[in-house]
Amino acid sequence: MDFDTLLPHIELELQKQISRLDQPRTKRFHDMVAYHMGWTGEGAGPEATGKRIRPLLVLLCAAACGANWQFALPAAAALELVHNFSLVHDDIQDNSPKRRGRDTVWVKWGAPMAINVGDALFVMSNQAILDLKGNFPAEVVLKAAEILHDTCLDLTRGQFLDMSFEERTDLTTDDYWHMISGKTAALLSACCHIGAILGGADEEKQTAYKSFGQFLGLAFQVQDDILGIWGDETITGKSATSDLVEGKKSLPVLAGLSVNGKFAARWRQGPIEPHEVEDLARLLASEGGYETAHEASRQMTELAMLNLREADPQGEAGDLLFGLVERLLKRKQ
Amino acid sequence: MDFDTLLPHIELELQKQISRLDQPRTKRFHDMVAYHMGWTGEGAGPEATGKRIRPLLVLLCAAACGANWQFALPAAAALELVHNFSLVHDDIQDNSPKRRGRDTVWVKWGAPMAINVGDALFVMSNQAILDLKGNFPAEVVLKAAEILHDTCLDLTRGQFLDMSFEERTDLTTDDYWHMISGKTAALLSACCHIGAILGGADEEKQTAYKSFGQFLGLAFQVQDDILGIWGDETITGKSATSDLVEGKKSLPVLAGLSVNGKFAARWRQGPIEPHEVEDLARLLASEGGYETAHEASRQMTELAMLNLREADPQGEAGDLLFGLVERLLKRKQ
Repeated sequence: MDFDTLLPHIELELQKQISRLDQPRTKRFHDMVAYHMGWTGEGAGPEATGKRIRPLLVLLCAAACGANWQFALPAAAALELVHNFSLVHDDIQDNSPKRRGRDTVWVKWGAPMAINVGDALFVMSNQAILDLKGNFPAEVVLKAAEILHDTCLDLTRGQFLDMSFEERTDLTTDDYWHMISGKTAALLSACCHIGAILGGADEEKQTAYKSFGQFLGLAFQVQDDILGIWGDETITGKSATSDLVEGKKSLPVLAGLSVNGKFAARWRQGPIEPHEVEDLARLLASEGGYETAHEASRQMTELAMLNLREADPQGEAGDLLFGLVERLLKRKQ
Repeated sequence: MDFDTLLPHIELELQKQISRLDQPRTKRFHDMVAYHMGWTGEGAGPEATGKRIRPLLVLLCAAACGANWQFALPAAAALELVHNFSLVHDDIQDNSPKRRGRDTVWVKWGAPMAINVGDALFVMSNQAILDLKGNFPAEVVLKAAEILHDTCLDLTRGQFLDMSFEERTDLTTDDYWHMISGKTAALLSACCHIGAILGGADEEKQTAYKSFGQFLGLAFQVQDDILGIWGDETITGKSATSDLVEGKKSLPVLAGLSVNGKFAARWRQGPIEPHEVEDLARLLASEGGYETAHEASRQMTELAMLNLREADPQGEAGDLLFGLVERLLKRKQ
């Protein structure tokens, strides 16, 4: 068992789920979804599919609790489909023209079609999770579906807060943690929780896996914030400093604003211009923005590891889980 | 048992489902959803909520099969929430400023927020259907959820076809029936199908209820097309002739185009101006557009009634079902 064994199975399951749209009158609709998933069109390939972290987490957690990972494939697909639904809608909401280096769905086919592509991905995630019924008792399937839906509501809450924050000037780091809890962290937590349930883990272990996913997601998100300001542009594939230009209220920025120094003074004067970002990123670092975020990321990583050790994942899958965390939290993009 | 008994219970269940968003940090988000549901804000009240046809169908079909309708309330709410999710997204996609005489969600809060409001309604419909688990065995809940999700995929397919049709000039009435099968008809069919399942109906009766809903929806849609061209503006509350101005490829229009007469000639010249609509509506009627649509509506109504008699709904609920069909298909708005 290794990532290279699991990934093709994940792609196959995703393709199977999405083939529901592959019918005579909706071929073009299926094409749009396949394009977003990174399988077809310009720039298709491994770079375009994303890392499939969420389905990997589902399969590894299920296997580390003693289940046959193949039985958990529909759940793995469901979580990846939810993630991709949220990306398609996010890109419309944020007016983002690029995703993983390629034109976003709304740029290629317009916002009305893109809304519908997101909706279809969402529906197919619901269908995928119910496909578990071939492998698990109805009560277990219902429990997994319930966690999926509760998580999706968290995602809409997180998205609401995120959009509301754009208008607010009085944000604190406390608001920040609330907002990001309803984003990556909610979804990664659901992956690990559902994986543990499918693996037959007891309540205590389920909680450990769930918390592991939660803290992993928080650490990941904070790291994303750091890379969004101090990342290497050539590595991330987007303007490394765009978070400052976009006025994104990320953790480093909120930390900088709370200090109320030179960075805060400049921020309040209005939008940051691209030519200012290099100096401002340095200024923000000198006023503690980098350090605060870095320390938060370190703490969240530690809590993730603590919970993972508590969960005590078994066998090869357990080793791979520790490896995945390592890979995720030491990434440069 | 009558409509006036059922409707307040439906509103209460909907409010309960939506209260998931009513939390300190997401009060404004909850307000947006409550506004769309017709409960709060300018113009709130019975006129703004819509007729709640879908939940009524669920409850009546369940009761007409012998179930306690109260047990079916979560499913009734789920179907109404799906309907409202699709309305919120449709309004963005169609750029419609008004819904039931009030500003649409995207007009009030912008498209990004409106996309998220639609997504939340969708999530809560998924959560609502699983709430059946308090009243029914897990296998029955899974079956109901499965029908809900399959129907939602039909809705995205129908929406895709609808949007694609705007660009096409070679449409036939055959394309039309395919497209509308994935809209109102799919949802009404699901209402009756799920109601019958919760009522414990056997396979044969389930099929009859399902087909009843399907034909009821088709009849309803065709009638909508007729009202969209020949409805009384003061009754419908929107410009009765707007379907012609909007270039909507409804059944009367497609029928008119297939005749290839004066209406078709004018249509192909470009967008219809508001001052032309009265004459053009008359021209389309004289070339058979009204007659074709009217005849189709009559046939679909007949098939709906045939299936409803086949389903043989029992008791007061059965009488109310026949009454609802009557009311639906003789409406003027």
